[in-house]
Amino acid sequence: MSKLWGGRFAKNTDLAVEEFTSSISFDNRLYKQDIAGSIAHAKMLAKCKVIADEEAQQIIAGLLSIQADIEAGTFSFDIALEDIHMNIEKRLTERIGPVGGKLHTARSRNDQVALDTHLYLKQEIVTIGQMLHDLEEAMLAKAEKHSDVIMPGYTHLQRAQPILFAHHMLAYLFMLVRDFGRLQGVWERTDMMPLGAGALAGTTFPIDRQFVAQELKFGAVYDNSIDAVSDRDYILEFLSFASILMMHLSRLSEEIILWSSAEFSFVELDDAHCTGSSIMPQKKNPDVAELVRGKTGRIYGHLMALLTVAKGLPLAYNKDLQEDKEGLFDTIDTVKFSLSVYASLLEGMKLNAPRMLDAVRQDFSNATDMADYLVKKGLPFRQAHEVVGKSVLYCLEQSKKLTELSLAEFQSFSALFDTDILEAIKPEVCVNARNSYGGTSPQQVRQAIERGRGILAAQQSTIDTCRQTKI
Amino acid sequence: MSKLWGGRFAKNTDLAVEEFTSSISFDNRLYKQDIAGSIAHAKMLAKCKVIADEEAQQIIAGLLSIQADIEAGTFSFDIALEDIHMNIEKRLTERIGPVGGKLHTARSRNDQVALDTHLYLKQEIVTIGQMLHDLEEAMLAKAEKHSDVIMPGYTHLQRAQPILFAHHMLAYLFMLVRDFGRLQGVWERTDMMPLGAGALAGTTFPIDRQFVAQELKFGAVYDNSIDAVSDRDYILEFLSFASILMMHLSRLSEEIILWSSAEFSFVELDDAHCTGSSIMPQKKNPDVAELVRGKTGRIYGHLMALLTVAKGLPLAYNKDLQEDKEGLFDTIDTVKFSLSVYASLLEGMKLNAPRMLDAVRQDFSNATDMADYLVKKGLPFRQAHEVVGKSVLYCLEQSKKLTELSLAEFQSFSALFDTDILEAIKPEVCVNARNSYGGTSPQQVRQAIERGRGILAAQQSTIDTCRQTKI
Amino acid sequence: MSKLWGGRFAKNTDLAVEEFTSSISFDNRLYKQDIAGSIAHAKMLAKCKVIADEEAQQIIAGLLSIQADIEAGTFSFDIALEDIHMNIEKRLTERIGPVGGKLHTARSRNDQVALDTHLYLKQEIVTIGQMLHDLEEAMLAKAEKHSDVIMPGYTHLQRAQPILFAHHMLAYLFMLVRDFGRLQGVWERTDMMPLGAGALAGTTFPIDRQFVAQELKFGAVYDNSIDAVSDRDYILEFLSFASILMMHLSRLSEEIILWSSAEFSFVELDDAHCTGSSIMPQKKNPDVAELVRGKTGRIYGHLMALLTVAKGLPLAYNKDLQEDKEGLFDTIDTVKFSLSVYASLLEGMKLNAPRMLDAVRQDFSNATDMADYLVKKGLPFRQAHEVVGKSVLYCLEQSKKLTELSLAEFQSFSALFDTDILEAIKPEVCVNARNSYGGTSPQQVRQAIERGRGILAAQQSTIDTCRQTKI
Amino acid sequence: MSKLWGGRFAKNTDLAVEEFTSSISFDNRLYKQDIAGSIAHAKMLAKCKVIADEEAQQIIAGLLSIQADIEAGTFSFDIALEDIHMNIEKRLTERIGPVGGKLHTARSRNDQVALDTHLYLKQEIVTIGQMLHDLEEAMLAKAEKHSDVIMPGYTHLQRAQPILFAHHMLAYLFMLVRDFGRLQGVWERTDMMPLGAGALAGTTFPIDRQFVAQELKFGAVYDNSIDAVSDRDYILEFLSFASILMMHLSRLSEEIILWSSAEFSFVELDDAHCTGSSIMPQKKNPDVAELVRGKTGRIYGHLMALLTVAKGLPLAYNKDLQEDKEGLFDTIDTVKFSLSVYASLLEGMKLNAPRMLDAVRQDFSNATDMADYLVKKGLPFRQAHEVVGKSVLYCLEQSKKLTELSLAEFQSFSALFDTDILEAIKPEVCVNARNSYGGTSPQQVRQAIERGRGILAAQQSTIDTCRQTKI
Repeated sequence: MSKLWGGRFAKNTDLAVEEFTSSISFDNRLYKQDIAGSIAHAKMLAKCKVIADEEAQQIIAGLLSIQADIEAGTFSFDIALEDIHMNIEKRLTERIGPVGGKLHTARSRNDQVALDTHLYLKQEIVTIGQMLHDLEEAMLAKAEKHSDVIMPGYTHLQRAQPILFAHHMLAYLFMLVRDFGRLQGVWERTDMMPLGAGALAGTTFPIDRQFVAQELKFGAVYDNSIDAVSDRDYILEFLSFASILMMHLSRLSEEIILWSSAEFSFVELDDAHCTGSSIMPQKKNPDVAELVRGKTGRIYGHLMALLTVAKGLPLAYNKDLQEDKEGLFDTIDTVKFSLSVYASLLEGMKLNAPRMLDAVRQDFSNATDMADYLVKKGLPFRQAHEVVGKSVLYCLEQSKKLTELSLAEFQSFSALFDTDILEAIKPEVCVNARNSYGGTSPQQVRQAIERGRGILAAQQSTIDTCRQTKI
Repeated sequence: MSKLWGGRFAKNTDLAVEEFTSSISFDNRLYKQDIAGSIAHAKMLAKCKVIADEEAQQIIAGLLSIQADIEAGTFSFDIALEDIHMNIEKRLTERIGPVGGKLHTARSRNDQVALDTHLYLKQEIVTIGQMLHDLEEAMLAKAEKHSDVIMPGYTHLQRAQPILFAHHMLAYLFMLVRDFGRLQGVWERTDMMPLGAGALAGTTFPIDRQFVAQELKFGAVYDNSIDAVSDRDYILEFLSFASILMMHLSRLSEEIILWSSAEFSFVELDDAHCTGSSIMPQKKNPDVAELVRGKTGRIYGHLMALLTVAKGLPLAYNKDLQEDKEGLFDTIDTVKFSLSVYASLLEGMKLNAPRMLDAVRQDFSNATDMADYLVKKGLPFRQAHEVVGKSVLYCLEQSKKLTELSLAEFQSFSALFDTDILEAIKPEVCVNARNSYGGTSPQQVRQAIERGRGILAAQQSTIDTCRQTKI
Repeated sequence: MSKLWGGRFAKNTDLAVEEFTSSISFDNRLYKQDIAGSIAHAKMLAKCKVIADEEAQQIIAGLLSIQADIEAGTFSFDIALEDIHMNIEKRLTERIGPVGGKLHTARSRNDQVALDTHLYLKQEIVTIGQMLHDLEEAMLAKAEKHSDVIMPGYTHLQRAQPILFAHHMLAYLFMLVRDFGRLQGVWERTDMMPLGAGALAGTTFPIDRQFVAQELKFGAVYDNSIDAVSDRDYILEFLSFASILMMHLSRLSEEIILWSSAEFSFVELDDAHCTGSSIMPQKKNPDVAELVRGKTGRIYGHLMALLTVAKGLPLAYNKDLQEDKEGLFDTIDTVKFSLSVYASLLEGMKLNAPRMLDAVRQDFSNATDMADYLVKKGLPFRQAHEVVGKSVLYCLEQSKKLTELSLAEFQSFSALFDTDILEAIKPEVCVNARNSYGGTSPQQVRQAIERGRGILAAQQSTIDTCRQTKI
Repeated sequence: MSKLWGGRFAKNTDLAVEEFTSSISFDNRLYKQDIAGSIAHAKMLAKCKVIADEEAQQIIAGLLSIQADIEAGTFSFDIALEDIHMNIEKRLTERIGPVGGKLHTARSRNDQVALDTHLYLKQEIVTIGQMLHDLEEAMLAKAEKHSDVIMPGYTHLQRAQPILFAHHMLAYLFMLVRDFGRLQGVWERTDMMPLGAGALAGTTFPIDRQFVAQELKFGAVYDNSIDAVSDRDYILEFLSFASILMMHLSRLSEEIILWSSAEFSFVELDDAHCTGSSIMPQKKNPDVAELVRGKTGRIYGHLMALLTVAKGLPLAYNKDLQEDKEGLFDTIDTVKFSLSVYASLLEGMKLNAPRMLDAVRQDFSNATDMADYLVKKGLPFRQAHEVVGKSVLYCLEQSKKLTELSLAEFQSFSALFDTDILEAIKPEVCVNARNSYGGTSPQQVRQAIERGRGILAAQQSTIDTCRQTKI
């Protein structure tokens, strides 16, 4: 099939090369943005008298009929036409005649594909922002629902100090709040209009880029045409955002997998989020959590791939940049699924609160409180630490818990211990005592939930504003 | 040497393990932040009556004398003391006695190291922001200085359309402007105060985290103690920022290497930025540009390393996170060097303007203008493209340039060609004609320089504000 | 639809989760291997009397009819059935009744999918090995065809010393020879039979794994069942091989892009391997080379993705490992295309030999020879280097080439110069003089071609041997 | 300070650039290889009559005295001299006069640094091979020592089937055996001699590369001079090897961290391999395992860094390639430490065998055996799976174990159950029953240990052979 750029060529493209260099198999997902961009472009050309009004009307009608066909599933894409832009333009000319050839006046595929990708990503950012927000809501709800459940807090996967489950859940909430902040940064740098950059240097036609930006509800226009066609920062920044977000979800996944194990037994996932084994009838595997953890690698890979692609490329457009899309699309799909499944997974997850509390009772995670007890009686912290360290060693040798020591035993380590020590090292007391800002005490957690609620309300309003730019 | 946490241990650490787990060889670079943080902590403990005023005074005096020793080069670090925190605290106690042991009340190394890293990175962000801004200034100056130099613009490394060198330089300016925007995002999420999170759950002492934040000029306090000690987002986000920035510099480097080649000969670098060969006496190699391009890989590697480290870690602190620092430090050093050397490299780079213009004259990069000429006479763009494509093929077969065709030859391709065609395809005319917003015409480039100047002024004011938080 | 593992579950899988955890959309590509593996397993079960002979016959017939359906395009895959294994087994039971349920005796999906992937990769290694070999043949042919073409050799993209084009081509040949060696290592570690490992611990049935290995033409059997189901080394090693191979192709691509530029004009690619521009009629872009260079990032990404996935996973199988396949499949497709297109691209690439030679004549790449001339007259190399460096500086200031200096000028730099100096620094003489083993002289290049031919013959025999294990 | 290549330069290098491009701060570690390579080169030059015998003697004596100074710590490195090669050569000339300048005849820094790195890596491969082998020995010893300990085997971190601890340990052994195989591949492609390639094209002197190879005990000589100076495959392949090895160690680390948790309590690490907390006196953290897991990210980062550096570089040497060394050196150090510490960590790790067995007794990991029991009585596997799945669900609802069901209860699920069922699902019986090749039965494990021993003996002999090439 003859190419739209074939004039200078004496020979056709190799068929295998055609397939290799074609992007239609994945960029067809941009059809709606491509058509919306072309309509805005046609309107602008007419407004600027580059084409006649009736020509613009014909073009727009033709484009809308193509969109209808695509959405009805009756449009057939042709890999020989390389990409979504050429597929649509070729069909347009078949349908409305040579005037279709006027649509590509004053633009190039370089700025056209940049426009489509910006439009597409903007829309997905809004969707992802909402899903992120919804997961935060689910976390907040989960924290509130179980606001009195005590569990061991860990460092180095060793029990460290007792905490509230709600406090633990809020740790993830505040990670996601930062992710939302990063997503806003991506939005800001995606919300820039590249059309009019032409191949790289601008165009000789008297166009109006601000008009196109307004039509398509962009907040800004690229200031430099070369930059406009070769910039992939916004995709890289999105992939960075996604990598850090997935990293957060991978940490949560790791914990849910741990908590679901026989050894922890802190939670039970809903059957709907697990699968079984083809051979072991007893198995109930936390597949969803494992898969989200696994898919983190995939997103890192996409980030690394595009960083590598972009490294050392001379300006402006190079074919290498066509590699930007598949990784972006797959990242969008993966992030959306992960966010949505996690909201429902958390909701369906049952806590085994007695087991969690029992875990706290069986360990030494109150040792810090025992040291703090001594400090409050005047011992420098370092000496208090030493005293308690020795007590723990003694307990380990005697197979006792700290709460099982007699006052005499306590006092053999330090004369400062008194009868109130046993009260001071109860789990509930330890939790309540961590009442500084951001700490795990019920009072602090309640306040943190309130702050979270305020942040989420502000997020929702940001999302709603961005959503209004939908075209 | 006895550890500060040794009470519970029956046996010493293996010496090789000590070396392996020790971080003092690289985290000593945080000494100033560690001491500033400890002083603020001591003041707060006194203010909150956790320790006595005179105790705080003793501690502060001791810390300041240690800082003096470190800066005088008379302090010896000990790897058995694991890290900068323990090195300083141990010495403090040796110097001021057991009261030194009170400093660690109500904090843990987990929140302490987080505090130090936040403080350190904040300061480096200001420095890097300034250097980034200075490089932008150098680009703006370079663009202005050579505002009339015409060169070929490239896509696919094939000559595409004539452009101004200044326009090309501005493409990089606007990339760096986005980098600056991303750096502000990093700042925002670095400017959060973690101290008071304790090991992970907060502390049982009546501390005042807002007071510490104020003392250390932080804009915000972490809302959740678990998050505060396990968050490494801000480092990852900084590494992402640095990766994209270095990607930009790698593109510029690639171009400077190309331009310095015998084949291009567009620029000559200053001897000060080149090195020679041990064997080939004629060589003058653009080493600096190559090394910056190469060091891009190193920064990508640091990003990938920390993403990998953080993936799937259960909350809260795990020793794996100690791996955050070396990559961060090396990234800071590399970015600072790259930015600073590039400002002077650009300044010292001489353009070979006649050669650049000559290149434009020898090629077909005016073909688009020839097609636009036909469009303006009424031909649909697609047909105009075809006509010009055939003309180019004809020229190639005849070894001619487009400017060497006779009118008869032009008209053999389309009757629309007239005598004004030769004027229309002169390089200067082509450049001037791309006069839409963001295009390469001298008028547009002048306006872009003005916009750039405005952006840079705003950046400087942002930097100055951030610099005031220096402690 | 009811799951094959549903007995223990009180509730169905969430539909979205089903889609998320399903792999049938990509693992259907393993159908042939899955069926071949099942047939071998069924034969073995019969041989070991675990099932009856006639049961095995029924199962095998059923499997073959399913394979026929798949290949006829009449088999419909169901995502609710999760993966290729369950899709086939379910259909088998529908077709031959409950005896189909006996096929899964003494195996698990864990060892089954491992088997399929090993079988699949083995076959693709043979194909890729052949394609790699064919590209090497094309390089060898290209080197031989242009065995007398002289071009500048570069370091730092600065002209360094004259070389033969054939010598340059052979540099790539020997890189690919190492790639072939690495591919053999991948083969060795892929050619291991995992079936019989069961879920992770082996099986309670008296099976014969060596029999299965023989049926499926494997060279070895996994020694440890846990390792057999959790090993993904062979995929990682393949991805590493592919990354290094693509890195090599990216270097060649970079050079072909440079050589195709107007500035170099060393080669002209066939129209069949280039594409044009939608806006610039004169453009002929080396898309294939750019795309191969770009796709290098994609392969690096797949490697990084799987390394990340595998990091820190406890034994044995975890769902994360399902992420191994898409990256593997895409890498296989990309590598195959890149190898095959490059063989034809090189064949179709025309050299502009006069331009290449002219480039050598216009530069200082004979400066080393001028220094060597002095060394042979007794000057220590370091002093000779200094003398020539000064001569070059003088030439640059005088806008002369070394070959344009008078004898008097030569002697002003060193009295050792004599009339034979002009002969000594001719390009042909410089090339001929580098006649040590592995050097660029025609004699050495001829010998290297001979060695290459011998290596390629041995490769072909290795490939043929491996190909015989095809099932 | 004047450069050895300064003749052509009118101006000195910028001081900051000097520091930036200098590599002496890290490549000084190659001094021994550099001197050994220079000695071999000098001998060869004398043998080939390029320099006189007495000149070679002077040079060699000078080099040896420099080596003595370096080893005595009395040699001062100068960053203005860029690298180890120039540092040594400059000193040589200071010491023995202008004849020192003859050493660099017929070589370049490009082939010289390649030689040094090959020599260095070869030596480290031998060391690492030995350490890898020693860790395998430690695993084998651990497996043998605890050959009767039963523990739960996991998939998806859910208890799956009972296994022997020894079997689990052997899974790691066989991973490391593959790592050893990969290391041999690295050796093969590192054991190639690049010297004589000169800057890129060979040399005009009548050198004898085979002689140098023999002197330095190389197995092969690079066949192509351009390839010889630009090849970094062997480093990339080493980094790939190291990445996969560290991935294996990260998996083992994850398990040891899990096993050390209060929830698992399967093992107790020696105090010597743990550290405590500055605030929580009870803590005993598995730092070494965490740090090895964390350092995996670092190695992945080094791999990604060098892959990125090498991507798209034109031939031959480019300064970017200087970035190959720091990552390599750090990888070598990290791998060596990880291997050595793990051998001792495993040795010091105490198993809590009763707890492990108890875990098996408390779960449903015998469910597969219950299904196999039914299969052996004639039920198709799929139906048996269904029956057992229902039994498990019943037990969960009744809070019973399978071993606590009455015969009547068993028979309510299938009439095929008989009194022997309780025996069939005992942990010991389940383990013993998995007696197929590579399974977990004691007999199979004993045989696997024997096979392992044979493999290790062969490895040792390979290492010993390679060690003989030490220079």
